[in-house]
Amino acid sequence: MTTDPIELTARLLSCPSVTPAEGGALALLETTLGGAGFTVHRLGFSEPGTPDVENLYARIGSTGPHLVFAGHTDVVPPGDPAAWRHDPFAGAIDGGVLYGRGAVDMKGGIGCFVAAALDHLAAHGGKPKGSISFLITGDEEGPSVNGTVKLIDWAAKRGERFDHCILGEPTNPARLGDMIKIGRRGSLSAVITVEGRQGHVAYPHLAANPIPALLAILARLTAAPLDAGTDHFDPSNLEITSVDVGNGATNVIPQKAVARLNIRFNDRHSTASLKAWIEAIVAGAAQDGISPGVAYARGNSESFLTQPGVFVDMVQATIEEVTGIRPVLSTSGGTSDARFIKNYCPVIEFGLVGQTMHAVDERVPVADLVALTAIYRRIIDRYFAV
Amino acid sequence: MTTDPIELTARLLSCPSVTPAEGGALALLETTLGGAGFTVHRLGFSEPGTPDVENLYARIGSTGPHLVFAGHTDVVPPGDPAAWRHDPFAGAIDGGVLYGRGAVDMKGGIGCFVAAALDHLAAHGGKPKGSISFLITGDEEGPSVNGTVKLIDWAAKRGERFDHCILGEPTNPARLGDMIKIGRRGSLSAVITVEGRQGHVAYPHLAANPIPALLAILARLTAAPLDAGTDHFDPSNLEITSVDVGNGATNVIPQKAVARLNIRFNDRHSTASLKAWIEAIVAGAAQDGISPGVAYARGNSESFLTQPGVFVDMVQATIEEVTGIRPVLSTSGGTSDARFIKNYCPVIEFGLVGQTMHAVDERVPVADLVALTAIYRRIIDRYFAV
Repeated sequence: MTTDPIELTARLLSCPSVTPAEGGALALLETTLGGAGFTVHRLGFSEPGTPDVENLYARIGSTGPHLVFAGHTDVVPPGDPAAWRHDPFAGAIDGGVLYGRGAVDMKGGIGCFVAAALDHLAAHGGKPKGSISFLITGDEEGPSVNGTVKLIDWAAKRGERFDHCILGEPTNPARLGDMIKIGRRGSLSAVITVEGRQGHVAYPHLAANPIPALLAILARLTAAPLDAGTDHFDPSNLEITSVDVGNGATNVIPQKAVARLNIRFNDRHSTASLKAWIEAIVAGAAQDGISPGVAYARGNSESFLTQPGVFVDMVQATIEEVTGIRPVLSTSGGTSDARFIKNYCPVIEFGLVGQTMHAVDERVPVADLVALTAIYRRIIDRYFAV
Repeated sequence: MTTDPIELTARLLSCPSVTPAEGGALALLETTLGGAGFTVHRLGFSEPGTPDVENLYARIGSTGPHLVFAGHTDVVPPGDPAAWRHDPFAGAIDGGVLYGRGAVDMKGGIGCFVAAALDHLAAHGGKPKGSISFLITGDEEGPSVNGTVKLIDWAAKRGERFDHCILGEPTNPARLGDMIKIGRRGSLSAVITVEGRQGHVAYPHLAANPIPALLAILARLTAAPLDAGTDHFDPSNLEITSVDVGNGATNVIPQKAVARLNIRFNDRHSTASLKAWIEAIVAGAAQDGISPGVAYARGNSESFLTQPGVFVDMVQATIEEVTGIRPVLSTSGGTSDARFIKNYCPVIEFGLVGQTMHAVDERVPVADLVALTAIYRRIIDRYFAV
């Protein structure tokens, strides 16, 4: 059993846990945490049409306050391993930098918060003044169906109550200490389909081309910004992500046209309000021979915000103390599993520097692992000193 | 050897000449025309990337005036033969109607003009007072690369000079006698591609979405009608035929977006003027990170018009005499092989009623074959009586 975050991260990186594979990463955490006195649950979830996923929940202590660290051991594929400076699943250290798929997203974060917790426990007789737990999924990079959402629901149903959560995603754009995420924008994906009537381009009066109607819908949806941003959020943004007809015949007016869009939205909107807005515009495009409709992708999420206060202030001050940088409180970027956790307790996100995530030669300076472990360790010390 | 248009058409319909297959149709014409004294040439053309195609050129007489009848023996596929009332390649007559793929488009037209010519020759000692020829391709329903365009070029290079051409495509919308085509609109197909920069939808400032730029180009291209029509032509028309991105990931801003369009245009425009117009709009959409471009499909064609005059007047009067209907002089509809022939001599188009062309149960009333043969026969008689 090690409490060295570098060794623990390197061992996690050696597990080929490309989503949804467990790859030995959860087994390593089970052994490590079990050996330190945690009660460990390994939980597999499955659902038709999605891959089976393994997850882990570990807790030590039985009273409050209850601080939970959340994260994922699954990683995105490495691409061509030959393009890497070092084997993406070897955990190689070269020039003070640890290489491997997941180094910053987010096996490094896990290595640091596990090491910090074990250090804290070792310094306090093996028991926290409250409870520490770990909520680790293998389905963050996948469809996120059999991961955190089911794991935390399972925990809640067995009576687990969480007071605060720290998710260890790589939140810093450039330097460790840049940014804490205190919320996330919501995400809504829609598929707009316009059905017309196929025909020959030389006889357009006998056909009804669905493309102009679809383009008119898209023009209305993108005519004006959704908003100008709010206190803690950037402006909402709509991106048209695809338009598809699939008609290769130059002399044919097609029967159907489809557009896909995604909206990242702040706390001025909800999935319900945006759906109503889209549906009104889509319905307004109906005309003789032209039938527009809209459907929504699974996995849409509401925006959320963990209001700044005592907990956020303590985390922010601790990060500044260790790094010399006062982190910005941000709600920018993509979605994360925080969107599921926020229904159970306040959640903030802080981890490593994201620059190399999902890229070839994903890597983390050893110094960042040391500093992040020191930050997590001080946060735990202060949390239980309250 | 028959000069009965019904029997000749039925025998042509029995040849399974689904484009590009010859199916025995040209062999039948070779035998029929050769037996009547025509010099017959069978000509195969080929080109990489396109199917090999057989064609036929037959001429009788060696002086002018030279009247050429043009057409095609290839047909579109029948689809599911079980959906047909009669075998699409049997030439079945039922209730005074001849069924089969190609009945009106355009084996019926060929049966009629061949029968009319043979009748005329039989009544005039086997020789015309000038020349009659047949320019028959097997590549009108296919890519039109190894058909009429090469056949007429071959003929011209060997010294053939044509005075007038009648193409036997089904020109009548509802009744035999409705419509002569004296020209055709041009056709231009363009492919507009916009390259941007791929990225994550949550970080749009790091990406450059090509879709809005493409939609802006399409909006400008379709903002106003191209014209209001001209003396002999309908208004020009632009149809967007496809828009394709092919991005299935809801969280990705795509790298590239493609639109396809086709313009059917009248004599106010040319492919050159339209290309210049498109290219100016496309170039205007360039911006930082966004590179738009345009390419053109092969097989674009200019509009053309055979000016009304003695020849057109004679054909129009003859049709009215036989059918009791004064045919409209039109330039409507799609393109035809007339776009290739018009570079060599004045060409008009007149044939059967097009209603069932390309459809299940394609068919022609026997009475229409009889009437169309009578029309062609009178046209030949008058042409050589000049």
